[in-house]
Amino acid sequence: MTEADAPRRRGRPSRTQTEAAPATRDRILEAAREEFSERGYEKTSVRGIAKAAGVDSALVHHYFGTKEQVFEAAIEVAFAPALNAPDAVADGPLDGVGERLTRFILGVWENPATRTPLLAIVRSAVNNDTAAAVFRRLIAAQLLRRIAGQLDFPDAELRAELAAAQLVGTAILRYVIKVEPLASADPEQIIARLAPVVQGHLTAP
Amino acid sequence: MTEADAPRRRGRPSRTQTEAAPATRDRILEAAREEFSERGYEKTSVRGIAKAAGVDSALVHHYFGTKEQVFEAAIEVAFAPALNAPDAVADGPLDGVGERLTRFILGVWENPATRTPLLAIVRSAVNNDTAAAVFRRLIAAQLLRRIAGQLDFPDAELRAELAAAQLVGTAILRYVIKVEPLASADPEQIIARLAPVVQGHLTAP
Repeated sequence: MTEADAPRRRGRPSRTQTEAAPATRDRILEAAREEFSERGYEKTSVRGIAKAAGVDSALVHHYFGTKEQVFEAAIEVAFAPALNAPDAVADGPLDGVGERLTRFILGVWENPATRTPLLAIVRSAVNNDTAAAVFRRLIAAQLLRRIAGQLDFPDAELRAELAAAQLVGTAILRYVIKVEPLASADPEQIIARLAPVVQGHLTAP
Repeated sequence: MTEADAPRRRGRPSRTQTEAAPATRDRILEAAREEFSERGYEKTSVRGIAKAAGVDSALVHHYFGTKEQVFEAAIEVAFAPALNAPDAVADGPLDGVGERLTRFILGVWENPATRTPLLAIVRSAVNNDTAAAVFRRLIAAQLLRRIAGQLDFPDAELRAELAAAQLVGTAILRYVIKVEPLASADPEQIIARLAPVVQGHLTAP
């Protein structure tokens, strides 16, 4: 009997299910990413994720723990392009970091494939304190601190956050609220204006 | 029989109710502001607003029209401090506008009485396209265009929006997501960093 044929049961995952770990885990994660993207944090349930993945809720808890932990794992996946790039963004010469960071963040938002999960994350974080805590932990630990770590100022973290604030605010007004003319402006025109501002936050005396 | 003693009825508002126009209208508006602040746009209903104000739903429609129109009227009231101040903010010399605007926006967010409705507006606008349209109309028409109107650049509106993006992003990271050290930083330290950035967006060549 294959896993797909096995009847769903409540309670502890069966031996068959736990043996198929990597593929099942990925399927749950993908279902979680889609559920959170479509419904936001508050309206998503572990039961709904399990149903979308075709597994028992107990298996979701088995692999990921609480709903908060599933969310964290799912947004880590959704954020992977946004969290991996900063290696390249931060590795180059410090005097070009403003443009590289601005270009990178606008690129992630311009791409429809990454914009949808980002929108879901922003909406969830703005609406729900638990989702905000997850967002805060990820963004602070994996993005802001890595950038701040390159800077030789006592207020390096605050500088990195105010640079991020410029980019977060631009993304919200352009892609979420859609204020004109910002929403329709050529990305290059925005990059030309923002790159020196982000650079200034990070490296100006 | 006073209005307060009158039994509530469905359907058209009674003569007694419509005659008490200004006080009743204000009571509905205040109830709407509280309902939207507590629940956000999506979860607020005209029926709920009517109940909180102690009137019939028909009376809410009579004074304000649709839920969207009640929301617009309510956030105009909630935003009044944020919409009235720009006269003073924009009237002074142009070379101090960055600091005046930054100080004013942080002040509105630092004040708990104005922070709660602002939070509700931001949450509603990020989550709901109708609320976003109302926010966009108000912020664009009443705040950004008045600032842009003072600037002598072909891209004046885009500049005003990118300045606003710095302030909106800072408010979201500080007051909503609560990223540290930004969330606990002294407002004066933030103003010292942001005022020249906002000024640069608006007046730098």
